Amino acid sequence: MSEMWHYSRRALMMKSSIIREIIKIAKKPGVISFSGGFPAPELFPKAELAEISQRVLLEQGENALQYSTTEGYPLLREFIAGMLKKQGINISPDEILITGGSQQGLDLCGKVFLDWGDCVVSARPTYLGAIQAFNAYFPKYVTLPSDDDGMTIDGLKEILEMNNPRLIYLVPSFQNPDGRTIPLHRRTRILELAETYGVPVIEDDPYSVLVYEGTVPSPMKAMSPANVVMLGTFSKLLSPGLRIAWLVAPRGVIDKFVRMKQGTDLHTNTLGQYIIYEFAKDGGLYEHIERIKTLYAKRLKILIQAMEHYFPPEVKFSRPNGGLFLWVELPEGVNATELLPKAVEKNVAYIPGSAFYPDGGGHNTMRLNYSKPNEDEIEEGIKKLAEVFQEALSNK
Amino acid sequence: MSEMWHYSRRALMMKSSIIREIIKIAKKPGVISFSGGFPAPELFPKAELAEISQRVLLEQGENALQYSTTEGYPLLREFIAGMLKKQGINISPDEILITGGSQQGLDLCGKVFLDWGDCVVSARPTYLGAIQAFNAYFPKYVTLPSDDDGMTIDGLKEILEMNNPRLIYLVPSFQNPDGRTIPLHRRTRILELAETYGVPVIEDDPYSVLVYEGTVPSPMKAMSPANVVMLGTFSKLLSPGLRIAWLVAPRGVIDKFVRMKQGTDLHTNTLGQYIIYEFAKDGGLYEHIERIKTLYAKRLKILIQAMEHYFPPEVKFSRPNGGLFLWVELPEGVNATELLPKAVEKNVAYIPGSAFYPDGGGHNTMRLNYSKPNEDEIEEGIKKLAEVFQEALSNK
Repeated sequence: MSEMWHYSRRALMMKSSIIREIIKIAKKPGVISFSGGFPAPELFPKAELAEISQRVLLEQGENALQYSTTEGYPLLREFIAGMLKKQGINISPDEILITGGSQQGLDLCGKVFLDWGDCVVSARPTYLGAIQAFNAYFPKYVTLPSDDDGMTIDGLKEILEMNNPRLIYLVPSFQNPDGRTIPLHRRTRILELAETYGVPVIEDDPYSVLVYEGTVPSPMKAMSPANVVMLGTFSKLLSPGLRIAWLVAPRGVIDKFVRMKQGTDLHTNTLGQYIIYEFAKDGGLYEHIERIKTLYAKRLKILIQAMEHYFPPEVKFSRPNGGLFLWVELPEGVNATELLPKAVEKNVAYIPGSAFYPDGGGHNTMRLNYSKPNEDEIEEGIKKLAEVFQEALSNK
Repeated sequence: MSEMWHYSRRALMMKSSIIREIIKIAKKPGVISFSGGFPAPELFPKAELAEISQRVLLEQGENALQYSTTEGYPLLREFIAGMLKKQGINISPDEILITGGSQQGLDLCGKVFLDWGDCVVSARPTYLGAIQAFNAYFPKYVTLPSDDDGMTIDGLKEILEMNNPRLIYLVPSFQNPDGRTIPLHRRTRILELAETYGVPVIEDDPYSVLVYEGTVPSPMKAMSPANVVMLGTFSKLLSPGLRIAWLVAPRGVIDKFVRMKQGTDLHTNTLGQYIIYEFAKDGGLYEHIERIKTLYAKRLKILIQAMEHYFPPEVKFSRPNGGLFLWVELPEGVNATELLPKAVEKNVAYIPGSAFYPDGGGHNTMRLNYSKPNEDEIEEGIKKLAEVFQEALSNK
């Protein structure tokens, strides 16, 4: 009987994900949700993708439905290499592995780099999905606090010296959850230290293309190709449901990821790779990115205006110029997790920020997404959220 | 520089996969390949799937392109529960997790059950992909030899008593690589012992539906639902490129797999799940299975006739009545790995059997696939393989 079965330590240690619990709460009908990281479904190019998928299956079905290589569809990898070149990253398609979402890229980083008790350096807060992926390999986290410019670097040298970390995990541009971007001078210093101490930087980069105003600093992979493993994805740029992302690692390293992926799921779904390549190859993806940037820029603007108008002055928030998320800080002592049921009662939901702290803390913070709720919902949702905050502050 | 990076022990221990090397060798143009486990591409229902994918994207694109739940598409899980019911397995859709191929199911079994040094019981030979998946979690294998009825069970009780294994891994029906099927009385005894010692049986079952003559014994999951984790897949039944498979585990256990998958890749590609459901829901899958069974039965018959006609009498082979593979045993002392380059020179390829032995051995064996090569290729390929054998035997 399964009651007698023994499980791995990782299975025993795994808590129910806070996010999954929150999503259950927030599924109440009529709730305006700032909680997910979902692209705006109304912009999915359904008709084009329908035509493409039909054509791919009719004309190339023997290949698109068959087993394919672990590395991924060669033409798609070539396209990605060309896309990265526009960001100053000069790599060969051979240095790219197609993954089942960036979440798989994160799991593979854990598998390739981490043994029990190894040190991982990250910002606090940082991306929850990375914490979940790495936790299966039992790392010890050493985190550095963030300011408006993302991860601070005071003490990083000492951490690298003393903890012999296996990797530095960063979302340098428009980080999930806080929308913050690490400026060029910090990127340079981090890379210098990573090179000196022989520690790979994992640059998780789903958002740098989604810049709405001004510019974004050079990707770290472009600055120091031999010291960075970079993750990118089509999830936010086109469709998350196709589960097509990529991992870039230096020659001599990429093969370790390929072999590890082989044992993990053989290869990423072939049809999705063909569909994305056909959509992207003649400029379709770049046009689509312009469309989503226009919409998200508008929603971000409305969100910030609403927050400025409705939020009590004690409530602080980040002002990113790209990505999908921003960050709200309540006064110390106000607990965003405890506030969530009250918000859901008023039909508005968010993700409490503490979920993004690998080693605890952040109880007065929350993450807001602005790609999924529409303009009216943003205005209405922030108004309601402001009421929840007012109440909490007056009870304090 | 990446030369200074430190890797996990699993990354350091991972050898280049023999299969990958063989596939490189066998890629020579004109080679008749018995080596892969590929479904016949000429039977892919391209036109139907093209029409379905177009319809799904036009009518349900908002969902089919979006993030979906880790558990998988509810309607597909319902369909699978109904399909399993025909095999005598009574489970609820809640006990099913959709996975990215059964390879991911195997990786999740490793993640959920195995800590460093834990014991895994399997047949020898057994499925190579399982060995690759489990190896990432550093198990110790204790194997039992196979006879014509698959894994023998003499000594199984003592192994369970002494080694406290975390799981028993089996492909009970038409096993990859040897095509052998474990009969009912052995299944019963294995399940009795597994129950007594509280050890889960992983029943990897891609093939039991592909029976060409006679019947196949009841799935072990039907015989002992609370003691079995079962893996199934659409890869051989419809399309491997869509990467849609499933894992069935008892209530109270399935959630451990779901949470582990969440950190591994969030969820399986949504579009593929929708396409398969739409194809399957009104009987399309069952009709398709009849078509492939007819073709594979014919190819198996031709293969056996050709082997009987051409192979030297010293060469033995299994005679499965289902699945995709059969097993060839050369006389002791003839090494199938060393023979492969000579076979490829004559434009024929196979997989050396030693790749399927978790703890070494099997050097005089090989696996032959008969779903991919067509009837003429089978006849021609076996003729050439017989020449290679003749030469090897006369040099002995």
